[in-house]
Amino acid sequence: MKLTILGCHSATPRWDANPTSQVLEVKGHLFLIDCAEGTQVQLRRFKVKFSRVKHVFISHLHGDHFFGLVGLIATFRLLGRTADLHIYGPKGIKEAILLQLKLGKSYTNYGLYFHELESKTSQLIFEDDKVCVTTIPLDHRVYTNGFLFQEKIGERSLNIEKARELNIEMSYYHKIKQGADGITKDGKTVPNTLITFDPPAPKSYAYCSDTAYFPEIVPQITKATALYHETTFLDKDHHLAEKTKHSTAKEAAVIAKKAEVGTLILGHYSGRYNSLESFRSEAQEIFEPVQLAEDGKVFDI
Amino acid sequence: MKLTILGCHSATPRWDANPTSQVLEVKGHLFLIDCAEGTQVQLRRFKVKFSRVKHVFISHLHGDHFFGLVGLIATFRLLGRTADLHIYGPKGIKEAILLQLKLGKSYTNYGLYFHELESKTSQLIFEDDKVCVTTIPLDHRVYTNGFLFQEKIGERSLNIEKARELNIEMSYYHKIKQGADGITKDGKTVPNTLITFDPPAPKSYAYCSDTAYFPEIVPQITKATALYHETTFLDKDHHLAEKTKHSTAKEAAVIAKKAEVGTLILGHYSGRYNSLESFRSEAQEIFEPVQLAEDGKVFDI
Repeated sequence: MKLTILGCHSATPRWDANPTSQVLEVKGHLFLIDCAEGTQVQLRRFKVKFSRVKHVFISHLHGDHFFGLVGLIATFRLLGRTADLHIYGPKGIKEAILLQLKLGKSYTNYGLYFHELESKTSQLIFEDDKVCVTTIPLDHRVYTNGFLFQEKIGERSLNIEKARELNIEMSYYHKIKQGADGITKDGKTVPNTLITFDPPAPKSYAYCSDTAYFPEIVPQITKATALYHETTFLDKDHHLAEKTKHSTAKEAAVIAKKAEVGTLILGHYSGRYNSLESFRSEAQEIFEPVQLAEDGKVFDI
Repeated sequence: MKLTILGCHSATPRWDANPTSQVLEVKGHLFLIDCAEGTQVQLRRFKVKFSRVKHVFISHLHGDHFFGLVGLIATFRLLGRTADLHIYGPKGIKEAILLQLKLGKSYTNYGLYFHELESKTSQLIFEDDKVCVTTIPLDHRVYTNGFLFQEKIGERSLNIEKARELNIEMSYYHKIKQGADGITKDGKTVPNTLITFDPPAPKSYAYCSDTAYFPEIVPQITKATALYHETTFLDKDHHLAEKTKHSTAKEAAVIAKKAEVGTLILGHYSGRYNSLESFRSEAQEIFEPVQLAEDGKVFDI
């Protein structure tokens, strides 16, 4: 999994600080997660081949996560896109986008499909043979979902040396990788686990923004390879976090610790702080493996 | 009049080429004209005190003139704006903006007033004692207006030397500046024009984007101090201009020449051309006083 941060700041777009958007590359997919104003410029700036984006996941309908979507859709049209585009987001998103396209007589010449969300419990919203995506209901001022991106367990890989040593019939190799036992040239059965390696452990990425401190999400995101959790405020301003239903760095770290995730990535910083390092140090008092999101930064998950 | 170009490129926003938006400073007003995605970033970048913007004029509802408006409105809210904001634009603009604010539960805490336009003839849409703004109906793929910003004739200024020489009663000075005749200390009347200077000629700025070649606008913009006219294409691509209802540099120059404007400012360039100089040279074959708009450039009109 490769995560490219297009923007990781809260509230209003500034020249050097973009609101939320990120791209997750996993198993051949390029998933766009949130789409603030300016996202299409960031996609070009960081050289993401954004024609490959076929699925866009919108957490909630605040402008700093959503106002760039209509422009991206219009740009895809101008670029002559033909591939379908799927949008997953809160109920109302379809009306907002289609109204604007209608006013500009700018209907898309590619398939534009909306998958509107309104469930307050987790839902499976995308699945193919390699990846699935489920919603993580969050606690914010408006209806909001995080998203859990999970790789599926891959095929076992053949232990070719062992297979030769045991004289396994080659025509069985394909089925062995799918889990079948092997048959030797003289007709004996060999258990699959003797002639294959375990597939790599499937990875998972949990995206949680925006949300108040909400430990209800812990069971769902437990053991995630990486967790992106919003940290709009520092603990000294926790009253602002409570009032606006955002989280502090400390709270994000508590969630990460409870969920025993591999890495905690912080973002959605308020513009009131001079340095991002204070987010890191506050979180690391509770949970050590912390990384700071920055616009343009790429994480290998 | 001071015109700051925030963006002057067509179609899609890019890192170094913003779609249309500009700010006109005239008689204490800061008028925002069109508002593409990224406009609020450009306002900050070019250090425009954008809290002073009270009137926004939107030519048409294509994204490259309009998709930044909702974000600017939301940002004004976050910045604690209290002053009213007036939006002038095609019918439908109110629904598009309010729907998005509603979805984000982000209603403004300042007065937001929409003045929806649908007339196909020119209308006076703003007027105070110093300035008036009228629409310039244009010819584009969707309902579009340009805008004509006109200063009103100011007060005459007193020729103080002449007034002293003629022994004009000082208590009359204020009324003389408003046009009254003077009275000497021994009671004689002196005609106003003998003791005053003409006020400076009122200036005017005509903004015409987007539009096909449309000479019907000439009578309205005749003798404008400056004309901004879109030039999406060069003449060699005039078939594209016709097809998309845009103008070539040559056509913009013909309009400028017919209307005998002071200066022609070119903009709304297609991204297909490597250099902007070809727009200038093509226009100057027909009309000499041509300037090229560039993002961040300031024109004293």
